[in-house]
Amino acid sequence: MAIHLGVISPQRPFVIEELERRGFVIHRAEEGRNWQEWAQILAPWKEEIRGLLSGGMTGLPRGLIEALPRLEICAIFGVGLETTDLDAAKERGIVVTTAPVLFDDVADHALALALAACRRIVEADRFVRSGRWRRGRMGPGRSFWGKRYGIVGLGRIGSALARRLEGFGGTIGYVDPAPKPEVPYRRFEDALSLARESDVLFLCAAGTPGSGPILTRSELEALGPEGVFVNVARGWLVEEDALVELLAERKLGAAGLDVFADEPNVPERLLGLDNVVLAPHIASSTEECLRRMGECVIANIVEYFATGRAVTPVRPQPHGPSHRTEGEDPCPGW
Amino acid sequence: MAIHLGVISPQRPFVIEELERRGFVIHRAEEGRNWQEWAQILAPWKEEIRGLLSGGMTGLPRGLIEALPRLEICAIFGVGLETTDLDAAKERGIVVTTAPVLFDDVADHALALALAACRRIVEADRFVRSGRWRRGRMGPGRSFWGKRYGIVGLGRIGSALARRLEGFGGTIGYVDPAPKPEVPYRRFEDALSLARESDVLFLCAAGTPGSGPILTRSELEALGPEGVFVNVARGWLVEEDALVELLAERKLGAAGLDVFADEPNVPERLLGLDNVVLAPHIASSTEECLRRMGECVIANIVEYFATGRAVTPVRPQPHGPSHRTEGEDPCPGW
Repeated sequence: MAIHLGVISPQRPFVIEELERRGFVIHRAEEGRNWQEWAQILAPWKEEIRGLLSGGMTGLPRGLIEALPRLEICAIFGVGLETTDLDAAKERGIVVTTAPVLFDDVADHALALALAACRRIVEADRFVRSGRWRRGRMGPGRSFWGKRYGIVGLGRIGSALARRLEGFGGTIGYVDPAPKPEVPYRRFEDALSLARESDVLFLCAAGTPGSGPILTRSELEALGPEGVFVNVARGWLVEEDALVELLAERKLGAAGLDVFADEPNVPERLLGLDNVVLAPHIASSTEECLRRMGECVIANIVEYFATGRAVTPVRPQPHGPSHRTEGEDPCPGW
Repeated sequence: MAIHLGVISPQRPFVIEELERRGFVIHRAEEGRNWQEWAQILAPWKEEIRGLLSGGMTGLPRGLIEALPRLEICAIFGVGLETTDLDAAKERGIVVTTAPVLFDDVADHALALALAACRRIVEADRFVRSGRWRRGRMGPGRSFWGKRYGIVGLGRIGSALARRLEGFGGTIGYVDPAPKPEVPYRRFEDALSLARESDVLFLCAAGTPGSGPILTRSELEALGPEGVFVNVARGWLVEEDALVELLAERKLGAAGLDVFADEPNVPERLLGLDNVVLAPHIASSTEECLRRMGECVIANIVEYFATGRAVTPVRPQPHGPSHRTEGEDPCPGW
């Protein structure tokens, strides 16, 4: 008996092809914009669908769980869980898996944004291409090395970032709800204390459903007119109105932003600022990483239906509300 | 008796102000475009001028040495020496000093360009600002971490870069005319062997007057269609025509270029390519670094005329034709 899978978030073509090659029946609903639309598109097969392929931003909402009575597993192409109702999934015994293979790429991206913001890489490229270099020099940027780096959220992304930052001759501080006795970095009690003693502040925290922003106007003001802010986590984890205002008024020095509160809509005012580097949520978007994530989705679906055990299931963590998956590089080449 | 100084390259305003405050008489000639023009502008004071403030690209040409018979010291705001005739300076007993305080900033910039090229940071920013994100996603970039990094020239810039690269989980190889028994990186016999085994190749070598390119078409072809090339050294150290052609034909994957053969003129064909990140020779252009370099110029001039000894004079090196200055961070806050 063929196993039916629903798809509610874009997947790499090889993922669909491989699963079809292995005999799964695929029902595509990724053009839906919310759980009601996914449920509607998948309704004809709601008694057949046992697996779901989702994404880090779409997740697995309660409404969709209720609309798919035979659902057993949801494989997420990403690591975000804020749109996944883990309680509802647990009640129904649905396994949720993520693709915990993107930490290094996201850490690279955080550093790429920080360096680009400090060294004005985007402006520099525009300066050369527009021919302005023939008429004069562009103004200097900011040094990046030897600064006080602050990391909000020392999970696997924050830790990968910290390892990279060790080569830049500065100091590294962090805040995290979980104690990290094994790391040599200075732990701060709260984000405000960290921001006050940081030159470059990186937001790498996991999004917790229902929580408000971790970084508010106070922390951003504390960073100050020479401070640089980088966000590779979630847009709604920072008070975006305050962020935009402070950047526009140069009360915050510069920013590198990969995520926004209402993607793909970016605050209009940001689009005219030269002290921000903007990216369309691409921290994990490299050929290599997308392939690994796709392999992880395949591995979870195939293993689950072959053995009853997924490869990278989500487990609640003892510390606070965040959830992590087990294993370090759990989805090797498939 | 006031000491007269000529200025043939742009300096930070505080450098001129500080030297004037200390009683030096400044004759500005930085609008000149070559040694003939500098000599002409400075001709009225040629019997008075004992010191010269120059830059990394302007240096101290033989013609200017001959035009300034009382010249004793040339303080270079930079580290490049390919336009300085060290033999002519030595014959006349003229002290040449550089500002060897920019290595970390240049290393940061090399990494900024490499990350921007791999992760398509400039394209990403354009994608968001132009509103294209509302209509779809941009394509993936390349991973940077875990790759084979090649460094051409393991001097102080290359070494600072290598320290940073250690955090990215890849392998580091290099070529350098001088043996570096103390470093843990793999040494290659020549640039071609290194390029063949590199994913990202960084050019960090010092420019040697009169030499041809270190990197020719062969090395760039060896890097290949997935390879990334970064140049923070000198444009003429790479065969630029071949570089442009290979990038345009995607036989070389991507590049981050801070320097060009005929600055500020950039090959027209590069301006239309989306697989290059272009910068207007700003590797050392941060507020912090320019201040340190300016302090170094001041320190050399003031110390030389007070004690007869400059702070960071250039000395010929035993290994090959490159020249280095002594000391590690020799111009502390002035």
